Amino acid sequence: MKIGLIGFGKAGKAVANVILQHKDFSLEWVLRSSRIMEKSSAGEFLGISSPDPGLIYSQQTIDIEKLLDDHPVDFIIDFSATTSIHMYGRAAAEREIKIISAISHYGESEKKLLTDLSVQTATFWSPNITLGVNYLLFAASLLKNIAPGVDIEVVEEHFKAKSGISGTAVKIAETLDLETESINSVRAGGIVGKHEVIFGFPYQTVRLVHESISREAFGSGALFVAQNLKDKKRGLYNFEDILRPYFFSEA
Amino acid sequence: MKIGLIGFGKAGKAVANVILQHKDFSLEWVLRSSRIMEKSSAGEFLGISSPDPGLIYSQQTIDIEKLLDDHPVDFIIDFSATTSIHMYGRAAAEREIKIISAISHYGESEKKLLTDLSVQTATFWSPNITLGVNYLLFAASLLKNIAPGVDIEVVEEHFKAKSGISGTAVKIAETLDLETESINSVRAGGIVGKHEVIFGFPYQTVRLVHESISREAFGSGALFVAQNLKDKKRGLYNFEDILRPYFFSEA
Amino acid sequence: MKIGLIGFGKAGKAVANVILQHKDFSLEWVLRSSRIMEKSSAGEFLGISSPDPGLIYSQQTIDIEKLLDDHPVDFIIDFSATTSIHMYGRAAAEREIKIISAISHYGESEKKLLTDLSVQTATFWSPNITLGVNYLLFAASLLKNIAPGVDIEVVEEHFKAKSGISGTAVKIAETLDLETESINSVRAGGIVGKHEVIFGFPYQTVRLVHESISREAFGSGALFVAQNLKDKKRGLYNFEDILRPYFFSEA
Amino acid sequence: MKIGLIGFGKAGKAVANVILQHKDFSLEWVLRSSRIMEKSSAGEFLGISSPDPGLIYSQQTIDIEKLLDDHPVDFIIDFSATTSIHMYGRAAAEREIKIISAISHYGESEKKLLTDLSVQTATFWSPNITLGVNYLLFAASLLKNIAPGVDIEVVEEHFKAKSGISGTAVKIAETLDLETESINSVRAGGIVGKHEVIFGFPYQTVRLVHESISREAFGSGALFVAQNLKDKKRGLYNFEDILRPYFFSEA
Repeated sequence: MKIGLIGFGKAGKAVANVILQHKDFSLEWVLRSSRIMEKSSAGEFLGISSPDPGLIYSQQTIDIEKLLDDHPVDFIIDFSATTSIHMYGRAAAEREIKIISAISHYGESEKKLLTDLSVQTATFWSPNITLGVNYLLFAASLLKNIAPGVDIEVVEEHFKAKSGISGTAVKIAETLDLETESINSVRAGGIVGKHEVIFGFPYQTVRLVHESISREAFGSGALFVAQNLKDKKRGLYNFEDILRPYFFSEA
Repeated sequence: MKIGLIGFGKAGKAVANVILQHKDFSLEWVLRSSRIMEKSSAGEFLGISSPDPGLIYSQQTIDIEKLLDDHPVDFIIDFSATTSIHMYGRAAAEREIKIISAISHYGESEKKLLTDLSVQTATFWSPNITLGVNYLLFAASLLKNIAPGVDIEVVEEHFKAKSGISGTAVKIAETLDLETESINSVRAGGIVGKHEVIFGFPYQTVRLVHESISREAFGSGALFVAQNLKDKKRGLYNFEDILRPYFFSEA
Repeated sequence: MKIGLIGFGKAGKAVANVILQHKDFSLEWVLRSSRIMEKSSAGEFLGISSPDPGLIYSQQTIDIEKLLDDHPVDFIIDFSATTSIHMYGRAAAEREIKIISAISHYGESEKKLLTDLSVQTATFWSPNITLGVNYLLFAASLLKNIAPGVDIEVVEEHFKAKSGISGTAVKIAETLDLETESINSVRAGGIVGKHEVIFGFPYQTVRLVHESISREAFGSGALFVAQNLKDKKRGLYNFEDILRPYFFSEA
Repeated sequence: MKIGLIGFGKAGKAVANVILQHKDFSLEWVLRSSRIMEKSSAGEFLGISSPDPGLIYSQQTIDIEKLLDDHPVDFIIDFSATTSIHMYGRAAAEREIKIISAISHYGESEKKLLTDLSVQTATFWSPNITLGVNYLLFAASLLKNIAPGVDIEVVEEHFKAKSGISGTAVKIAETLDLETESINSVRAGGIVGKHEVIFGFPYQTVRLVHESISREAFGSGALFVAQNLKDKKRGLYNFEDILRPYFFSEA
């Protein structure tokens, strides 16, 4: 399966890293906003030997329609910025290229656009695209469903410089209907990222813990989505839609 | 709902403790093998003020048919020994009393009997009846289903004197199809019981942890089963059968 | 070594439990405020077979001077209330009975009295007398000494009903000179008590964790102090004074 | 303080990374076995802007005596290979350059050489040079000293491909006089490195945990040693010698 990657910041590079090393997927090209490294190979830049072309293009100098026609792909994976979807969305949907967006925040106009695009192609959006965090959300809400009265608290740990409550912790709290006071934020040293959901029962405790090791987890997550979206029809999908069939097949 | 409890060892006492304090359930009687405390009240013995009768009877001096007729119950909860089911099973099933057995090991003859009884009444058996451990099994097998190639190891911790791998860890390994070498057993001091399932992905780690606080967790689990078995028809049930509907309703 | 125990509430009972089972110590008597169980044996009451006398006396009916003369002891261990030291302190010090107090809070008058008593006998006071917590305080302050700029946060977990920050967490914060915002309090279910001190370095994390299993830890701590106070001369001691020689002998 | 770094593999690069960013230390040069990147700047290669010269030299083309005379340093930090000490040891010691070696394994001839060198200059060797692991060893042996009979087990977790028990876990076991069976090795996914020492008491549990985030921890450790070795006289030192004064000053 052929992939076009949009965005080549820290997350984008980590995602390229994972795609380049995966034998089922080929990184056809990378589209970034700046012109740095333009026309060079993402694999070479990242020090990975891979048969994938992975040429880097800049939005400043290439036309998206031309890029999609000259170098067709099955999926666009978007780790760039909120507005990019306006640039490539319609061109991709017309060509029935499936869209996988991992953008953190979308406004109303982007959400509206996603809905429009989903009429023409399978369109996926998840602000956090790691498998582990999404599993955690799913598993935690199931336990809350089983035991509605259980006490729940969240402890999230990150590096000292991270300000505010982590977006993932906020999402956990929303999903489980917790007050913000139930989130405990630890900021210390270089901790990459840890989320722990504590379920306190009277005579036992259950803990669901997710620890991030590196940003490459975004790449694994995006490819997991691609694998599961491959045979999906047009429509708008989120991560829960991707996970749910596994639960049914289990049951 | 009225409950008759069979078995009054350490686990049985802890279960009685929980039933006596739960307003939706009444502990009608306790049936034990010895004659110690015979005819006295379980609540008084445990130092719990409760309106439940909770009279203690001995298998040595009372006839099970008479007990069930004089003091009818909706559920029998069995925390006694492997053979007890032969003593009370048919009498209970004929009266459509639902059976909840938490016996650790049953041989072929007991399993056969359970199947027979389940034609007449809702019959439940689970060697580990805590909600937390059963949720852990369920949630772990779901994650393995999603990510079949993930590395899985188990760390279980118990008090120094506990010999052999814990039954729960063995069950986890069976459920997840792990080699015994993937179970790490820590024996130290007075640790009540901790099970951790570690899912190692290349760029992230997920941990599912269960910590036991006290044996009363058996009681909570048994009552959780009773609540969910209340409206169930005849048939043979295990803990996964009880949990599955929560997953579907979620989905 | 002979011990007289003052206080027979939840903590006192757990301490009696440990002393009765320790072969190097004999529980001579228990002195409590109420008259419940007066003159009966602590061992019998707790269901422990022990050769120790362990008779229960009430402050309402016995004179402390007479008790100390009729049933002499080497140590008084105090798990009762703030004011008790006024009742037994001078009588104990005159007889050179060593004093081990685990009272949570002492006012100025009690602290003054302790100083006075310490002129006549070895006098020990620690608001938290478990070995684990005191080791944690010691070990944590050493690491802070080594790495003064390290980021430190505390996570403490207790049962839902516990109100306010735990006294131990406050003590940790004072010892390490942390702001109260660095303490994260989790309240969920029946967690007995867990304290974790997180040291965040840029490229590594160190965690010191203490988990309480039961109140009997107070008993072990008190006997540890007794063993170490046995050969100590007059003077006022706290837990750090007891631990320090171990660090020197190591070095 | 001026530093010469020997070795520029994965660990060496991470150490250079840390030195280049530390204002109290200047990376004068790097000496490596290969000729790759020869004469280029370590800072430039690592993408770090730093005023330090940090020129890369190759053992194949430069004479160590000339290097030390043309580009004098206060410390040599060695992250290369077992035999390197024979190459630079005498030349460094004659110039009273302090030596900090983080080589994993030394044979008898290297240990003998270190002893010889230590007559002329402060010579330090530690197979694991991270502050956290060495603190863990120290703190763990102190707790064992306080409570000789406590149950101790070690759980170490690393990435799937790591074979054998971790060297750090072996060192912990040696230090605490544990059987190899007390070490539990978990191998899963991409876990960077975690060591947990569990002290099981009858009524409480103490855990000392070290988690590695990245190899840069070696650099922090080496500079911590340098800072503490700065005013040390000739002699042979290990990490415990460096830590011990902190414990005394505390006490």
